[in-house]
Amino acid sequence: MQFGISIFPTIGPEDKSGRDHFRDALELARLADELGLHHVKTVEHYFFRYGGYSPDPVTFLAAAAARTRRIRLVTGAVIPAFTHPVKLAGQLAMLDNLCRGRLDVGFGRAFLPDEFAAFEISMDDSHSRFREGVEACRRLWSEQDVVWEGGHHRFGPVTLLPRPFQDPHPGILIATSITPESCAAAGRAGYGLMMVPSINKREKTQEMLALYRRARAEAGHDPETGEVHMSYNCYLAEDGAEARRKGRAYSEVTNRVMTDAVAAWGRTGSADYPGYERVLEKVRGSDFDRSLGENKVLVGSPDEVVEKVRVIREWFGDVTLSLQVISGNVPHEESARTVRLFAEHVMPRFTESVPAGTLSA
Amino acid sequence: MQFGISIFPTIGPEDKSGRDHFRDALELARLADELGLHHVKTVEHYFFRYGGYSPDPVTFLAAAAARTRRIRLVTGAVIPAFTHPVKLAGQLAMLDNLCRGRLDVGFGRAFLPDEFAAFEISMDDSHSRFREGVEACRRLWSEQDVVWEGGHHRFGPVTLLPRPFQDPHPGILIATSITPESCAAAGRAGYGLMMVPSINKREKTQEMLALYRRARAEAGHDPETGEVHMSYNCYLAEDGAEARRKGRAYSEVTNRVMTDAVAAWGRTGSADYPGYERVLEKVRGSDFDRSLGENKVLVGSPDEVVEKVRVIREWFGDVTLSLQVISGNVPHEESARTVRLFAEHVMPRFTESVPAGTLSA
Ligand SMILES: [Ca+2]
Ligand SMILES: [Ca+2]
Ligand SMILES: [Ca+2]
Ligand SMILES: [Ca+2]
Ligand SMILES: [Ca+2]
Ligand SMILES: [Ca+2]
Repeated sequence: MQFGISIFPTIGPEDKSGRDHFRDALELARLADELGLHHVKTVEHYFFRYGGYSPDPVTFLAAAAARTRRIRLVTGAVIPAFTHPVKLAGQLAMLDNLCRGRLDVGFGRAFLPDEFAAFEISMDDSHSRFREGVEACRRLWSEQDVVWEGGHHRFGPVTLLPRPFQDPHPGILIATSITPESCAAAGRAGYGLMMVPSINKREKTQEMLALYRRARAEAGHDPETGEVHMSYNCYLAEDGAEARRKGRAYSEVTNRVMTDAVAAWGRTGSADYPGYERVLEKVRGSDFDRSLGENKVLVGSPDEVVEKVRVIREWFGDVTLSLQVISGNVPHEESARTVRLFAEHVMPRFTESVPAGTLSA
Repeated sequence: MQFGISIFPTIGPEDKSGRDHFRDALELARLADELGLHHVKTVEHYFFRYGGYSPDPVTFLAAAAARTRRIRLVTGAVIPAFTHPVKLAGQLAMLDNLCRGRLDVGFGRAFLPDEFAAFEISMDDSHSRFREGVEACRRLWSEQDVVWEGGHHRFGPVTLLPRPFQDPHPGILIATSITPESCAAAGRAGYGLMMVPSINKREKTQEMLALYRRARAEAGHDPETGEVHMSYNCYLAEDGAEARRKGRAYSEVTNRVMTDAVAAWGRTGSADYPGYERVLEKVRGSDFDRSLGENKVLVGSPDEVVEKVRVIREWFGDVTLSLQVISGNVPHEESARTVRLFAEHVMPRFTESVPAGTLSA
């Protein structure tokens, strides 16, 4: 298994200044690099405490690239609907060179109605813009004299500069939360997958994973190489009871923040987002103790978290975990403690690789 | 006077890899920081050797922010026509926090027909998109609950996150090459100015400067604080003859590269760009010896360049010079030598500030 950190801020100016947030986030990236974690990741969101401190993941990752030596840098995710593909592909190619090939690009479709409204984009175009944006980036990275004639963009022939460091292009992962067809499409294309197991039943996550792995195999892609990232809120303390007490409090902050961000779903409907009308009640109904019992949050002492990761590996196979160690406005020292305890006491227990696809029945 | 460096790459993959370019560019930023220069700046361009390695100046500057301590970071320039203002303002606000307030934002209108074509934007909208983009960023940075109802964008109310580090917002400079009205508008708004003296007669540059300073004064802005950046190709060697020989060769490369980039002006006309039909012949007709004689390039021994800077100060007053030290695909060691020689032998001769606006008649 592989383990990284995900910087998912849930703060506004009243909670923490941008200056302090980015200072601390860069320090966590440096620490994760030093301790041998696999990746540092950050999100693209706007306006709300829910990720809004990170409107451009590439800008943060470029600074993190300059402060780290070996850790991979991952967008989790960039939103092609909000940036012209020529700009997005170019910006990511710069980052791939700045970090010398340590970049993996997660692409997301976005799901917050207020973000689409600000970018003057219809949510009903989200699938088509997403597909077009990912494919345009892939071609701009890997081909010359690209002529693009899509439903949303038409340009070319152009040859993108700079060429990416990685040949033919940085790793591509597809972020999906509840849409099985996205998993199958990612598998067919040979891309990796980014999932959020906390928002679905375990069986649904397994079903999406199976769809993804089957589609990969049927399309002839190596089943061993499809990287699956899964995000988990994570809070560790030497004392399990302390971890649960504090982890519960931060989790409640995160849930309040998320409730604000998804409020617009109470007055929104889109054929591209079936079922999202219920997002608000789902977030409101989330319960820390149940999440903990269902291994949807990694909170506890190191030994307790080892046990949870063991179960997750049983369920989902040899996946890559992204630890959300700051969400809930966790004080920096406590986030750093989580990263240290995880690296020292949990990671070493999962060095052996288990073949992907060996799900327990 | 103040002196910085401008990273204006003029290379393609056949000349230098992206990896090597960014490694060297970051090292120059670090060196300039160490030697006390005022700023490091980079451009936004696409596809052509002419700046095409820098499609997103913010991405480079974010990495430079993490490698430097005191030097200012300057976009020279970002192009609002190519990026949605919510994305652009957010990205720049992140950078302003990452560098703790060392950011100045130069905004440009762009002028290469192939770039507009790739972004599917009409050149005839360049002025209106530029004005709208700058003003939308300014308001997103300095106000809350912004409602934007422009000719190209409509959104809000939204409150941008993160809030910029600088209050009310990062410094704003307006890039202009040959358009006097842009200078007056920048002056009225209280913004700084970015100019390229090499492409105009000295008298025209003085006229544009006078327009700018008069408009600033008439609008009640402090005449002492309007920062005027001027870009110059710069190549120093201990031996003046060597500097001229090599500087001439690099200058010829830069001119060939620029000729390719502006070729489309041979088949383009736009009411927003009067006179640009002649850009191609202007570039083709440029002559190194004449440029050197007219102090439009800073090439020579340190003492020779001191004399040129003295004349420039006589002509234009207490401006900020941006030294283009890599253009022409100058080998890194020679760019670093230019920066070192300039910092050690030229800069100390211009420590005294001359009041802006004291142009010799
Ligand atoms: Ca649709
Ligand atoms: Ca070509
Ligand atoms: Ca793996
Ligand atoms: Ca017009
Ligand atoms: Ca508000
Ligand atoms: Ca000054």
